[in-house]
This record gives sequence, C-alpha cells and structure tokens, in this order.
Amino acid sequence: MRAIRAQYSRRGPVPETLIEPVEVELPPLQPGEARVEVLAAPINPSDLLTFTGEYGSLPPLPATGGNEGLGRVIEVAGDVDGLQVGATVLLPVGCGSWSTHLQLPARALVPLPEGADPVQLSMLTVNPPTALLMLRQLVPLQAGDWVIQNGANSAVGGYLIQLARERGIRTLNVVRRASAVAAVREAGAEHVLVDGEDLPERVAAIVGKEPVRLGIDCVGGLATERLAHCLGEGGILVNYGAMSGERCMISPRCFVFRDLTLRGFWLAQWFRRANPEARYELFAELAGKVASGALRARVHAVFGIARIRDAVAAAARGERHGKMVLCPNV
Amino acid sequence: MRAIRAQYSRRGPVPETLIEPVEVELPPLQPGEARVEVLAAPINPSDLLTFTGEYGSLPPLPATGGNEGLGRVIEVAGDVDGLQVGATVLLPVGCGSWSTHLQLPARALVPLPEGADPVQLSMLTVNPPTALLMLRQLVPLQAGDWVIQNGANSAVGGYLIQLARERGIRTLNVVRRASAVAAVREAGAEHVLVDGEDLPERVAAIVGKEPVRLGIDCVGGLATERLAHCLGEGGILVNYGAMSGERCMISPRCFVFRDLTLRGFWLAQWFRRANPEARYELFAELAGKVASGALRARVHAVFGIARIRDAVAAAARGERHGKMVLCPNV
Repeated sequence: MRAIRAQYSRRGPVPETLIEPVEVELPPLQPGEARVEVLAAPINPSDLLTFTGEYGSLPPLPATGGNEGLGRVIEVAGDVDGLQVGATVLLPVGCGSWSTHLQLPARALVPLPEGADPVQLSMLTVNPPTALLMLRQLVPLQAGDWVIQNGANSAVGGYLIQLARERGIRTLNVVRRASAVAAVREAGAEHVLVDGEDLPERVAAIVGKEPVRLGIDCVGGLATERLAHCLGEGGILVNYGAMSGERCMISPRCFVFRDLTLRGFWLAQWFRRANPEARYELFAELAGKVASGALRARVHAVFGIARIRDAVAAAARGERHGKMVLCPNV
Repeated sequence: MRAIRAQYSRRGPVPETLIEPVEVELPPLQPGEARVEVLAAPINPSDLLTFTGEYGSLPPLPATGGNEGLGRVIEVAGDVDGLQVGATVLLPVGCGSWSTHLQLPARALVPLPEGADPVQLSMLTVNPPTALLMLRQLVPLQAGDWVIQNGANSAVGGYLIQLARERGIRTLNVVRRASAVAAVREAGAEHVLVDGEDLPERVAAIVGKEPVRLGIDCVGGLATERLAHCLGEGGILVNYGAMSGERCMISPRCFVFRDLTLRGFWLAQWFRRANPEARYELFAELAGKVASGALRARVHAVFGIARIRDAVAAAARGERHGKMVLCPNV
C-alpha cells in the first residue's frame, strides 16, 4: 500500500519552502502494529518552530511533519487485541501525523468517542491540555478570580476562555489587532482588549481593586511587561510562546517591588514528568468536552496533503482566523 | 542642641543636585526617646532610586536621606531602661541616617558589639541580609553547588561571595569591566568573569556537566539572558537591581524549553513578612560576622556631612571601588 507523507530534509527560516509531499510504499504490518488512515492533523506554532530549528526538541532529519492528529484504524496485525478496524483513534505525539496513512504500535493508539467532529478531535493533544494545565497548575484559582492572557485569538487562547468560564474564572483577553476582537468574543470572552501602552489602566478600570492573579503570555517583547503591569502584587506570569519573535522584556521594578514571578510552560515537559494516570485523566476529561462540542477551536481552513505547502504558509501568516488543519485524504 | 541633616524637598534625575545639609534645632527629648550621634551611614543604590522616584516605596517630602547606619547613644530620657549612654546601636531602617544626630524611640535602637569597625557595622541592615536571604531562600543549596551572579563587584556581590564560601557554595562572579576583577578576587572569589556574549561557554568550561542552580542578577538588559543561559534546566534566576537601567530581557525559549523561573528579591518585603524572631536571628548572625571582621564590604571613600553632595555624586558614578559612606560628624 502506498502513502503520502509531508517530509522535510533540512531546517530553515521559511518552513513552506522546506516541506513537500513524498510518496512511500508502506511495509507489511509487523506484529503489534495497526495501520491508520489519518483523518485530520493540525498545523501548530510548535510545528513551525520545529522547521526553523527554534523548538525545544528537534527530530532527526529527514522527518515527517505533524505532532498530533486523529486517525481511523484500517488494519490490525493478527496478534492485536482490543483495537478494532474502524475505530477512531488519537495518534501519539510526534508521530508525523501529516501523512495519509501511518503504521504504529496498536498500544500507542487511544480510542476516542465515535461520531464527533474529526477536525476538532484532531487538535486534542497539544493546545487544550496547554490551556487547561496553565489554568490549573500555576496559581490556585477560584471562581471569580481574574486571569489575563494575550494572544487571546490563538487556539490556546480560545480553549482557555472556554475552560476558565466553565470554572467561573474571569478572563481579560488581549489581542494585537482590532480585527481579532470579534473572533475572541465568539469564543465566549466578555472582556477583549486591543494591546497598547494604556492596557494596565484599561484593565484596572475593569477589575477595580480585585487582583489579577495570573498572566499568560505568548507574545514576548514589551507585551510581557504590559501584562506584568496588569497583575496584582505577587502575581504569576507564565510565558508559553514568542509570537512577536522578541525576547520577554520586564522592568526589574516589576519583579523586585511587586514580587512577580515569570515562568515558562511547556507541555512536552509535563508529558515527561506526569505519570500515565494523570495523562489519561487529563485526556479523558478533554476528549469528552471536545467530543460533546463544549470545547472547540476556530478553524481557518482545511487542506489536503497535496497542498501542504499552502497550508504551512497560511499557518505562518499572522493574519488568520483560526487553525490550519490538514485532512490528508481529502 | 543643633544637628545637621542631609535633606531633599523634591525628586529628580540627578540626586546630588537635590540634597543639601540643613541645620536644625533638636527639640527636648520626649519620654522613651534617646539621642544618638550618628557614627556612619552608607549610601546605597536604593537611596539613589529614592531620590529619582524609582524606588518601590517613597517617603513624603521633604525627607532626610539615609536608610541605615550606626550610632552612639549620647542621652536617654529619664524613663528609658536598658539602654546606656555610650552604647553603640544600629539605627532603625528608614530613619534618615544622613544626620549628625537623631532622636529616636529607645526601643527602636539595637545595641551592637563594642569595639568593631563602625563603618563596616553601619552597612549591616541592607546589603548583608539581601545577600544572605537570596542565597538561602530561593533554592535549597548544598556545599558544592554552583551559583552565578553579575554585578559581583557590588557590596551585595561581595557579601554573597563571602557568605557562599562559608557554606562551601561555589560562586561564578560576573563583572562588566576588567578593572573590577581584582576587587572581586580580593573579596575571596575564585572565578571572576567579564560579561560578554560567550559567557555561557566560559561558564560551561568551568562547571562542566554540573548544573548552576541559582542566578543572581542586578544588571538587567541582555545581561539577564546571559545569566539565564548559564543556568541548568529548572534553574532560578532572581533579580534585585537594575544597574544597566534596562529591562530584563530573556528569550521565551529559556523559560519554556529550559523551565527557568525569574523572580525578584526585595528586602523591604521580607522585613514586612518576617516575624520579629526571624529578623532578630538574621541580624544577630550577621552582626557577629561583621563585628569579627569575617564579613566585610569594600569602602571607596568616607565623607563628612558637609560633603553630602560629593558623596552622593560619587555613589551615582559607575566607576568606583566600593561603598561611599557618610561619617556625619567627621
């Protein structure tokens, strides 16, 4: 059986020039393996950083793109128990999901609820747990507490709005352009602010004397300091991205006199440290919410694997309204 | 009785133009008070930030300069017990120590060992506890562990070298100019490095595979990131100053992929939160070390109160080799 994979053989500054669809012959299934047709696989910012070499862990080259996705089992080796042909499965992290078909150890495939939107389910592994763990692990938050985030129109930002609202946590959502405001409101946000020098004053006008306990930054540069100025004394600022391409900048005064802490969040590290039960619980919780439609991300466009270069170029552009998703077999 | 105080009535960018000696008549002692002749009082970076308005807490104006110092009791009110005329005492924080004489509640004065160097003892309250608490409170350090600091030729830097060495903690000491290296070695440092882009490589050549657990930054700007690059995964970076006048800059990659944390340290906040026993223990420990000569700071020059403007100007200059200290009655 033949498959098509989106492969790259070198790293460089312009991801869409590096990747190309390559046809390969799949070998016979080995014991314990299953063959999967990939239904959907998103293009995440971390994928782009893997192409440019800026990501925290890099696969050996040549490599197939794609870190997460959803598949359907089309064949299982004779010795495989408990996984049926036809099952909808979550693909394991880092499997090279930008492929029409994959052969993987059956035990690495996690069956998911049937009948749900495959595009939404394909985004389950990376962004929703990032949003949930940042809300849960950094500061003990209670209903009524305030959290501020920038890049609120990102997929993580949208999930965070929805997950916070479920728990009664109030979010202040910062975007870099007015054209992004409507999409953030549509994700359920009450307060959406366009970033600017007077951000702290506008936030103070909303929250009054109540402290903002947690700031979530995926932009960097002076945007980090503007979030810092919005936090109450002793607040925690967490960075998980570098959308501006600039270093995080914060005045020593923020740290020293206002007792702020700046940390990072990297899901890959959580995966390494968490035990299997914790991982299972997290994904079971999130899969239920995504399958029911309670938790969803905006999708800008869907591409077949032949258009992988267009898809990657579109994902790298700033002006977009949601995730680019590959449906390789469409 | 007449006294001279170094006063300022407004804030501005050039501290030495704001401050001037003012003669005042001291009122009769009130019940519970003691009259103190000030023996010595240092000029700290935080004093300069108080003049410019950049410090985290600012006194109402007009104000007398000086946050710490050493005095000798010259008179006590009739109802005062347990404090003798002639006693050497530590002045309370924020008392306006740049004065020839002060009248203060007797219970605010802490008797110190007699016979020690008054200039060294006058610097007890601000810099030594900053150095000790940063070493003690942020990361559990053991003998053999590595710590890196910049601004190592500052008074805090010098105390930190001595306090770390006592505990067997190994320090990497970064300075901004080659002319500062000798003074840092004299303070007892084995490893002194002039800051530069290749700092992480030079540090790696010293520590090999051993992680640097704690980074201590009083410079800001890209110097913060260079310290960050020297830390092991999960390391803690603490900022307590802004010698460069620039914001701390760190790439999101440091936070996210290497799990670093950036915090601030402000002694004033520790004072507010610590209980009286903790404060007493800390100062008893440090006073003993300073009185015995085991812990000392380099002094650049000593000034009488008539030369307060020269003293402040000298403290504000970058090229100096130790603390400027006021001995008001000299």
